[in-house]
Amino acid sequence: MRIDILTLFPGMFDLFNESIIGRGKEKGLFEINAVNIRDYSKDRHRKVDDYPYGGGSGLVMTVQPVSDAIRALKEVNRGPVIFLGPKGKTFNQEIARQLSGEDQIIFLCGHYEGIDERIYDEIDLEISLGDFILTGGEMAAIPIIDSILRLKEGVLGTDDSSVEESFSENLLEYPQYTRPDEYEGKRVPDVLLSGHHENIRQWRRYMMLTTTMVRRPDLYNKHTLSKDDRKILKKFSKEEKND
Amino acid sequence: MRIDILTLFPGMFDLFNESIIGRGKEKGLFEINAVNIRDYSKDRHRKVDDYPYGGGSGLVMTVQPVSDAIRALKEVNRGPVIFLGPKGKTFNQEIARQLSGEDQIIFLCGHYEGIDERIYDEIDLEISLGDFILTGGEMAAIPIIDSILRLKEGVLGTDDSSVEESFSENLLEYPQYTRPDEYEGKRVPDVLLSGHHENIRQWRRYMMLTTTMVRRPDLYNKHTLSKDDRKILKKFSKEEKND
Repeated sequence: MRIDILTLFPGMFDLFNESIIGRGKEKGLFEINAVNIRDYSKDRHRKVDDYPYGGGSGLVMTVQPVSDAIRALKEVNRGPVIFLGPKGKTFNQEIARQLSGEDQIIFLCGHYEGIDERIYDEIDLEISLGDFILTGGEMAAIPIIDSILRLKEGVLGTDDSSVEESFSENLLEYPQYTRPDEYEGKRVPDVLLSGHHENIRQWRRYMMLTTTMVRRPDLYNKHTLSKDDRKILKKFSKEEKND
Repeated sequence: MRIDILTLFPGMFDLFNESIIGRGKEKGLFEINAVNIRDYSKDRHRKVDDYPYGGGSGLVMTVQPVSDAIRALKEVNRGPVIFLGPKGKTFNQEIARQLSGEDQIIFLCGHYEGIDERIYDEIDLEISLGDFILTGGEMAAIPIIDSILRLKEGVLGTDDSSVEESFSENLLEYPQYTRPDEYEGKRVPDVLLSGHHENIRQWRRYMMLTTTMVRRPDLYNKHTLSKDDRKILKKFSKEEKND
């Protein structure tokens, strides 16, 4: 996979040399290439912004450098051009999964009050990270690239499938515990130490269902209760009554 | 403002030395301090993870190093302890605004399959960046810190209030244009070159309303149409009919 990023701050993407993603990069599983938009400016001061027509505070990114930079990258990267902007589709795991199927992607990071509307002619898709304001598109590109690359085969050392599964079922994960079994008087739930696999499975499923119900009722409403789910909810609510 | 981040990858936060946020840091408007959780491990190999009780793939962050690291930081930082995790409240501009009012914050970045549930006793708030999976909490902390700091007085050079205003009204922004007025045959809309302030205002407002209607009907439903909005919608739809 090849990812090219058009940005005014190419140094920011050095962080992908660290972490789990960094190891995948070392293994040659993908290539991340940050390109400075300023390098394409035909202005003698390498300017990339100017005042908006019609008035208003702040600056707008000009057409020439951005559009020339995209066209130059298109010579070597045939992937979709994705602009990270506030008017885009809200990013989610489904989009991450779709984009992880691409061999090449070009990301465009905007700044200032926005980009000249005519640049949109070069853009295939606009994605927003969420309903909050950032200083620049880089801040959205970083987690988005992370969530795409972790889905690429071989990037994650361990098999993270339990996270994936609970997610695709619209459920939050069950609570996790590791050694020691007692820490400052706080003990790991007995069931997890019992070695009884079916009881552990049911307890975990019950925790997934109830945690989602309480914390994310919007997600819970999207989850379809299976016959097994209903059996587990019944069983545990009975046990709680008896306590 | 003082922000401390508990992480396994402190180097990632170097990116705040760049960009607009970096300038605010230079001016001494805030302090960002990344602390390696591993430094608090009492294990002779500085281990911070272990296998989950009850079985399952992947590793879980252990209580001792994380809990000791949080307690050590609490000696110097009296802010809320925020864990970046998938079960948290979904981040939005309202949370950004609330947190920008704090003088101190501690962020905890998780990894692997999650953190030992007993660590939650040290946590005040869990925040999720959105409905997608990341390799670690750092990837959420970065945009969240960016969106908080840009709200601090003096951090942004220019007054970015138009972005803020459209946001608080649940509207997307109007299209922006800058020089030249014609680029490869594509012209800036005449109204923006007219110098007629009231016409420009009305056109921009119309674009905000219709862009939001088409792209983010969920946001549009939250927006309350003013008398002026209704007048503008009526006027422009009439003009379109006459075209």
